[in-house]
Amino acid sequence: MGKVVILGDKAINDGVSAHEEQVSNLDALHGLVNEDLKAVNRVILERMESPVALISQLAGHIIASGGKRLRPMLTLSTAKMCGYTGRRHIDLAACVEFIHTATLLHDDVVDESDLRRGNATANAVWGNKPSVLVGDFLFSRAFQLSVADGSLQVLDILANTSATLAEGEVMQLVTSNDTETSEDAYLEVITAKTAALFASACRLGGLVAERPSQEQDALASFGLNLGIAYQLVDDALDYSAAEKDLGKSIGDDFRDGKITLPVLLAFRRGSLQEREFWKRTMENGEQNENDFSLALNLITKHNSLDDSFDRARHYGSVAKDALGLFKDGPEKHALQDVVNFCINRAH
Amino acid sequence: MGKVVILGDKAINDGVSAHEEQVSNLDALHGLVNEDLKAVNRVILERMESPVALISQLAGHIIASGGKRLRPMLTLSTAKMCGYTGRRHIDLAACVEFIHTATLLHDDVVDESDLRRGNATANAVWGNKPSVLVGDFLFSRAFQLSVADGSLQVLDILANTSATLAEGEVMQLVTSNDTETSEDAYLEVITAKTAALFASACRLGGLVAERPSQEQDALASFGLNLGIAYQLVDDALDYSAAEKDLGKSIGDDFRDGKITLPVLLAFRRGSLQEREFWKRTMENGEQNENDFSLALNLITKHNSLDDSFDRARHYGSVAKDALGLFKDGPEKHALQDVVNFCINRAH
Repeated sequence: MGKVVILGDKAINDGVSAHEEQVSNLDALHGLVNEDLKAVNRVILERMESPVALISQLAGHIIASGGKRLRPMLTLSTAKMCGYTGRRHIDLAACVEFIHTATLLHDDVVDESDLRRGNATANAVWGNKPSVLVGDFLFSRAFQLSVADGSLQVLDILANTSATLAEGEVMQLVTSNDTETSEDAYLEVITAKTAALFASACRLGGLVAERPSQEQDALASFGLNLGIAYQLVDDALDYSAAEKDLGKSIGDDFRDGKITLPVLLAFRRGSLQEREFWKRTMENGEQNENDFSLALNLITKHNSLDDSFDRARHYGSVAKDALGLFKDGPEKHALQDVVNFCINRAH
Repeated sequence: MGKVVILGDKAINDGVSAHEEQVSNLDALHGLVNEDLKAVNRVILERMESPVALISQLAGHIIASGGKRLRPMLTLSTAKMCGYTGRRHIDLAACVEFIHTATLLHDDVVDESDLRRGNATANAVWGNKPSVLVGDFLFSRAFQLSVADGSLQVLDILANTSATLAEGEVMQLVTSNDTETSEDAYLEVITAKTAALFASACRLGGLVAERPSQEQDALASFGLNLGIAYQLVDDALDYSAAEKDLGKSIGDDFRDGKITLPVLLAFRRGSLQEREFWKRTMENGEQNENDFSLALNLITKHNSLDDSFDRARHYGSVAKDALGLFKDGPEKHALQDVVNFCINRAH
């Protein structure tokens, strides 16, 4: 996430301030929800305050360190596409971002990461303890915001999504280091840990607009498939030589033994000898200096990176079709562009 | 928590199966809510299930490892005292226990504890990662259970309590290793991290029974003061020679540099030389073999343990008086006995 990508010879930053060809995809979205997004950021700043200074500092660090605010923008833009003119989507978008941020904080503890979006992670700066606890605090804040919204339907969606997220994270832990993880199991993990929140972020837009359930389902389906595509690309980029050429850090998943689609495919398509390589490096964690280069070679040899992007395109197509029920207009086009953005942000 | 205490020459276990003099305090409570508590345990077992086996295993480990179920019993007994005859208190009591258990899991990660209630902690068995994530899962389950209850008032109480708990934990982290922590700051920490959930557990009993707000407030005040007394005693027991004589592990807080009332009082009452000792051992974490014995001597010299128990008795009295509004009966007596139990479980 938050990677800088060169397409041709253009440096493209996928952050809020980005320009250039591919990012114009998110620019349309930004243009549409810009004012609402500012309101969301105000809610976020206001609600991450606490009399306990360390909470505000640490929450400020991770929230201010940017990110695309993709999930809240999905709530804002789907609400807009559904003709919603009220204010509920603002707090709910903030709520979605809080849940996401809480997950990031706990993720970084679990992954023992030192960098996130090119910045030091909270756990690298403050240690694991505050990261766990401030994650809990932000999660509680999300809970409070959704209670303040006052809709049991909203609460039901967010409670279920939170449980699914946690299940997804544990599933990922269980499949970690297991080179025989099936593609289905991998999909189940990324659906739970990433796509479920994308789905809920989109469903909430239809819900506040009081659209019929089939439209809410369509929005959730859009979000779900977009989220799967997003995570597929994210995981593939960690093995992308193009990223490496940019001086970006790649290979984190390899070093952590986190089994993602590029490895999973290379393992299944590989010779017995190649499988021994994956087992040694990712299951047993015995990695030598040149192993990551060798891993990249095997992934290239078996076309697993390109095929990962193909899989992402498949889910991207399903996402776009899920919007078929909605009438054409700038919001729908902007949402379709999000799909393009998520898929084309690399290679 | 979960300590075995000898009074005179009787071994007393404060767990569910306990007998003997002091524990008769909780026996009255158990007798009153026994059937409801079984129902709560069924809900807990049912709702900690997940298709992800590791979640059920780890949640099962911490939940089955016992504990007194004190918090859910407070919800059950306050509801009963208020004449409630429905079923909502069962799920809400389970919800309270899930929030408590999630906090324990994250606490043990934060404290790097290896033992809890005499058993290996989840993080010692499975590592920190699953403990963080299964804590999140249980917290989400609590969220789901409270949404299923369907009352925004309940949701509001639990969301606020969760945020307070997290704030309390972070405050504790911030005051940790600071020997100059004031008694007020210490009280603020234990109020947030422990007493707030006791208060909500009790308030919920009155809420489901639809008692007027002043009765709900009285129940919350009972819980809050009981919770403060409970934590004061818990913290004092960690420096109790009587506990040590029983072969119980004491001195965890000393080794962790966690500043609690016995130390706080000994520091303030101590000579400059004694303060240097506390600073070296608890602020700078430089501890030698005999330092804990020396700490116990200083605490005894300044009467800080007895005075901690006195403080606890004060809050216990306030708790009992908070029940003044309710008519006499077995439930009220059982709740008053809980106060005695919490205070008399040692020394």
